[in-house]
Amino acid sequence: MIKFMSSDFLLSNNTAKELYHNYAAEMPIIDYHCHVSPKEIYEDRHFNNLYEVWLSGDHYKWRIMRSNGVDERYITGDADSYEKFLKFAECLPKAIGNPMYHWCHLELKKYFGFDGVLNADTAPTVWELAKQKLSQKDMGARGIIEMSNVAFIGTTDDPVDSLEWHKKLAEDEGFKTVVAPSFRPDKALNIDKALWREYIAQLSDVAGTQIKNIETLKEALKKRIEFFAQNGCVVSDHGLDYMVYREGDAAAVMQKALAGEQVTAEEAECFKTELLLFCAAEYKKLGWVMQLHYNCLRNPNSKMFAKLGADTGFDCIGPAPSAKQLASLLDELEANGNLPKTIIYSLDPADNEFIDTLIGSFQGVEACGKIQHGSAWWFNDNKQGMREQLTSLANLSLLGNFVGMLTDSRSFLSYTRHEYFRRILCDLIGGWVENGEYPYDKNALEAIIKGICCNNAKTYFGLEEK
Amino acid sequence: MIKFMSSDFLLSNNTAKELYHNYAAEMPIIDYHCHVSPKEIYEDRHFNNLYEVWLSGDHYKWRIMRSNGVDERYITGDADSYEKFLKFAECLPKAIGNPMYHWCHLELKKYFGFDGVLNADTAPTVWELAKQKLSQKDMGARGIIEMSNVAFIGTTDDPVDSLEWHKKLAEDEGFKTVVAPSFRPDKALNIDKALWREYIAQLSDVAGTQIKNIETLKEALKKRIEFFAQNGCVVSDHGLDYMVYREGDAAAVMQKALAGEQVTAEEAECFKTELLLFCAAEYKKLGWVMQLHYNCLRNPNSKMFAKLGADTGFDCIGPAPSAKQLASLLDELEANGNLPKTIIYSLDPADNEFIDTLIGSFQGVEACGKIQHGSAWWFNDNKQGMREQLTSLANLSLLGNFVGMLTDSRSFLSYTRHEYFRRILCDLIGGWVENGEYPYDKNALEAIIKGICCNNAKTYFGLEEK
Amino acid sequence: MIKFMSSDFLLSNNTAKELYHNYAAEMPIIDYHCHVSPKEIYEDRHFNNLYEVWLSGDHYKWRIMRSNGVDERYITGDADSYEKFLKFAECLPKAIGNPMYHWCHLELKKYFGFDGVLNADTAPTVWELAKQKLSQKDMGARGIIEMSNVAFIGTTDDPVDSLEWHKKLAEDEGFKTVVAPSFRPDKALNIDKALWREYIAQLSDVAGTQIKNIETLKEALKKRIEFFAQNGCVVSDHGLDYMVYREGDAAAVMQKALAGEQVTAEEAECFKTELLLFCAAEYKKLGWVMQLHYNCLRNPNSKMFAKLGADTGFDCIGPAPSAKQLASLLDELEANGNLPKTIIYSLDPADNEFIDTLIGSFQGVEACGKIQHGSAWWFNDNKQGMREQLTSLANLSLLGNFVGMLTDSRSFLSYTRHEYFRRILCDLIGGWVENGEYPYDKNALEAIIKGICCNNAKTYFGLEEK
Repeated sequence: MIKFMSSDFLLSNNTAKELYHNYAAEMPIIDYHCHVSPKEIYEDRHFNNLYEVWLSGDHYKWRIMRSNGVDERYITGDADSYEKFLKFAECLPKAIGNPMYHWCHLELKKYFGFDGVLNADTAPTVWELAKQKLSQKDMGARGIIEMSNVAFIGTTDDPVDSLEWHKKLAEDEGFKTVVAPSFRPDKALNIDKALWREYIAQLSDVAGTQIKNIETLKEALKKRIEFFAQNGCVVSDHGLDYMVYREGDAAAVMQKALAGEQVTAEEAECFKTELLLFCAAEYKKLGWVMQLHYNCLRNPNSKMFAKLGADTGFDCIGPAPSAKQLASLLDELEANGNLPKTIIYSLDPADNEFIDTLIGSFQGVEACGKIQHGSAWWFNDNKQGMREQLTSLANLSLLGNFVGMLTDSRSFLSYTRHEYFRRILCDLIGGWVENGEYPYDKNALEAIIKGICCNNAKTYFGLEEK
Repeated sequence: MIKFMSSDFLLSNNTAKELYHNYAAEMPIIDYHCHVSPKEIYEDRHFNNLYEVWLSGDHYKWRIMRSNGVDERYITGDADSYEKFLKFAECLPKAIGNPMYHWCHLELKKYFGFDGVLNADTAPTVWELAKQKLSQKDMGARGIIEMSNVAFIGTTDDPVDSLEWHKKLAEDEGFKTVVAPSFRPDKALNIDKALWREYIAQLSDVAGTQIKNIETLKEALKKRIEFFAQNGCVVSDHGLDYMVYREGDAAAVMQKALAGEQVTAEEAECFKTELLLFCAAEYKKLGWVMQLHYNCLRNPNSKMFAKLGADTGFDCIGPAPSAKQLASLLDELEANGNLPKTIIYSLDPADNEFIDTLIGSFQGVEACGKIQHGSAWWFNDNKQGMREQLTSLANLSLLGNFVGMLTDSRSFLSYTRHEYFRRILCDLIGGWVENGEYPYDKNALEAIIKGICCNNAKTYFGLEEK
Repeated sequence: MIKFMSSDFLLSNNTAKELYHNYAAEMPIIDYHCHVSPKEIYEDRHFNNLYEVWLSGDHYKWRIMRSNGVDERYITGDADSYEKFLKFAECLPKAIGNPMYHWCHLELKKYFGFDGVLNADTAPTVWELAKQKLSQKDMGARGIIEMSNVAFIGTTDDPVDSLEWHKKLAEDEGFKTVVAPSFRPDKALNIDKALWREYIAQLSDVAGTQIKNIETLKEALKKRIEFFAQNGCVVSDHGLDYMVYREGDAAAVMQKALAGEQVTAEEAECFKTELLLFCAAEYKKLGWVMQLHYNCLRNPNSKMFAKLGADTGFDCIGPAPSAKQLASLLDELEANGNLPKTIIYSLDPADNEFIDTLIGSFQGVEACGKIQHGSAWWFNDNKQGMREQLTSLANLSLLGNFVGMLTDSRSFLSYTRHEYFRRILCDLIGGWVENGEYPYDKNALEAIIKGICCNNAKTYFGLEEK
């Protein structure tokens, strides 16, 4: 029996242990897609207690609590921070097999030196221990990032963002981690959402281009893309409920929406298609990477959406017919020489094999693995989900070129998810070696492990050190 | 090598053995959803031979025989009972890896003390042995149930049922197992089926309400729901080909159908949506649990349907776009405060992850795990299907709150399926502990195992002892 | 640790080793569906080097190279053969976990006696070694087939084919392997493709029937089916993007297309449905097996399609709603007594469980396992894909009746894929036995293993020795 959370956690064979401890563990972290705040990094935000750093913004934990019948008062409501923490600690033992169980203990161990098990009994001790540690000078955002050996952070930013904090961070020579923005223009594309017109007005202002039709919208986006590029951006991100590809008069759809009329679902798809094609072509010119996230059902619980808004732990996987649309989108881009490096993520794990064959149909000479299948995303970010994504990718593509893990997280304590991924990766590959499916060739294995953990992403995104 | 069907069957690690033998094995069975006959329980039906108790009503076994090219004469036809049994025994060795192989041997061992392997050679011996045992006084329906340590049986009943046998069983103090009805109003909802009008007439009679429109239909259903509640019912069940959610004039659709016109598929969806919303709201008032079973393709072989009717072993998995509809249904119920405790089952295993995220979007304070993902259903009721359902549930929800197994069976010998489930559960969880993924904390593990095997269901359904 | 590619490759338990070495390894190969050239067999084609035999026609390898960013010049372009081989060898180490990695090394070992690892360093040695071996007299197509213990080869042939080489092979008493044609009328069905009219003209000529409407088309196809039957054909094959079942006026659609008009997608579906029903009925009369391959997205990259044409490594999995259509097709055939023995393959692995339940709804007395779920196809032809297909089939049908593996390959070196399959099969079944899930009954296991490896296919296809 491997002791819970011991150094060989998840490493069930000898080769796995060797690969992890000798190659994977030491590699710097390239966290190319996350949601942490550059302002908080710049200002080196400190946290008073575990509630602030752990629970106040983590909708994964909120789901756990709701699944245990906990009243919303203790989740997003007005209960006391410590009470909320106690409620969470009570739920945790039931989360057997859940990645949250592992994430929590990995974080408690790495950042707070807690080697035990968090539950109702130990909660008071853990609370105090964390409080003490968090009061240390080196336990602010910067300290945590440094302690985590993070070489690169790609935040997620709106086109209207001033990138003020990114600029300050770039100029701050005392902080070695590169913090770059990512361009996420969802609000410009979501012509079917209530606040789209307000957003367009805002974008007009920021870009200094009066947006009165689709051409001026493109012009404004292009300006912002260039602005982002000047500030170190090398990657964009698109979040879509499902993949769209619909021909039609996008310009007319835009006029209709600008006039304040509600557009139909089909019209919105036309518009989004046109803008995706436009943006992708721009990314291609700049050598950027395009990320596509899709098949997510957002805000299915309208009662709670009205109460708490978006991103509060109510989204779910949204299976939808996206395969043909995605293929058509890539096809049109490729036909016109506009296909950038692209990373594809579906929230529906049933799409794994489709994606891993599709990427093989659109590769190019710009990179080893120009079109990538992104790491197991969000609800799939667990042992099973990662093993399935890695196995499918290995079966149908070249695993050796994979750009690997990202946290996608809002929390500074999530860097241990890279450790989690690396252990799972090493266990999988170690198992193949032990089973005679790959030679025990240390050089080849080292290159593969270090590549997937760090080096591939460095090359793929063209990262430079500060 | 573990000996076939030995006491450590399916328990591949030491923790699994400990969990199963110390905690799981002894727990009473809560079989909250099945299809056994309350009349047969009340009358303590006895069986003359293995054909009667095993083959005469089990369409799982018929499928096995058909897959081996056996003539229908030996399956549902006029062949001799013993000949039919012999044919089945001949097929069985080919069923390697099939749950039927395990179910058969678990049943032969537990109820008939047969420790060997059933095949063409041993069939005569097994037939005689079973005949002998079945002739014993304590081998009727009641004896089998008692021997199986069954605390609760939830049968499946039509709204027009008089519940005569449930009443008699409730009054029978000599029989300790609680036998409660479940409310399954499929025939009232299936407005697109041939016999719907006849059924509505029957429902009118039984409810004492002349059903002449949708309002009076609701009134009649409400009366029957109350009648069921008075007779111990705490759970309903809906079987749907696919999930529906369509707005429209359900009242008009009903008038059309009452007039004898064929309704369209879309009209039927409107009608079913309206009735589902109505029924769910009633269940919620009473604190009942709503079960939803969907994505089943029923009677795809019309030749055999014409010959043998429904539920004769010809149904199959029916992948269909149900995700959005299911989400919308729950959303409307939740928005109106009408969402009851709900258990969701899809016959398509590709829906597992979607369901496990969806339930997390609609939890509530009424229960720990108010919205549940039901145990691997029907074609998924096998080692792989159960491991996948459990793993997905653990990854995306709180496994510790799972209400666990049910037989869904028509046979009194199926209680060993709970044993099968418990072994698989213990093996899975034991494996996690051995791999360092959960602490070896006996108290926590005992609570989880006993909870999933029995206690969670007891609490969730609000069961009381007789 | 099992040594890479040692004799126990993939055999992770003792029973697996026993089953493979004692029963599986020795069985002759029935390769009932592949794409090798009967002409090349007849003429005993020899190959000059590894490029010719390995790379020149293998779009699996091309995908690997494209996924590594290799320029098309080194793949399908004008680069030197040796340079192309070197490029491929450079990519291979990154293909960890990919079946190509295993196929390559199995082939190098079996046919060239190379026991090492192919990579950039060893490539020159391997090239020379293969060159030497390939220059031997017994290393032509015939020698390779004989060395591989192949009893039967089912090629894939167009209805207009003269079967000249099949006839010659049938008369060649010196060559013991039976080489039979398969009837694949895709071009006749693809009324929506550019060259359909030209094809119909060609078919008219070959059949000696002037095709001027759907009736004469059926007449012509019927003649060709009979001609194929006379030349040893026992199996047909249909490749469909997705399964179709649409009622409509197929005759009118055909007239429209004959007149040079473009038919709609719905019209094409009507036409294909009608012809599938017709062909299937003909196959049924002759006792043939019908193969259905579907859910493939062909030529999604139109730029590369324009450059290189079809079957050049750009196809991908094409998830599409096919379940209901497939069920309806089988239903209509069964209702009319026209359902032949049928093997169903979907390229989308998410269809496994659906297929395995569907086949159980349409079995018949003509064969043990009249309706089969085909072996993991194309992109699924890997350890994971095979294990999943076998496990699902075992769970939901009778694995003991499975007709087993086929190469589907264009290469004479692919027979080791049968070895690959057999090892995976024995490992899976051996694991069940070790885990106590099936008795360690040598006779039963021998029958199952030999059945799946060879004997079931022999019986199912009604094969006779030459």
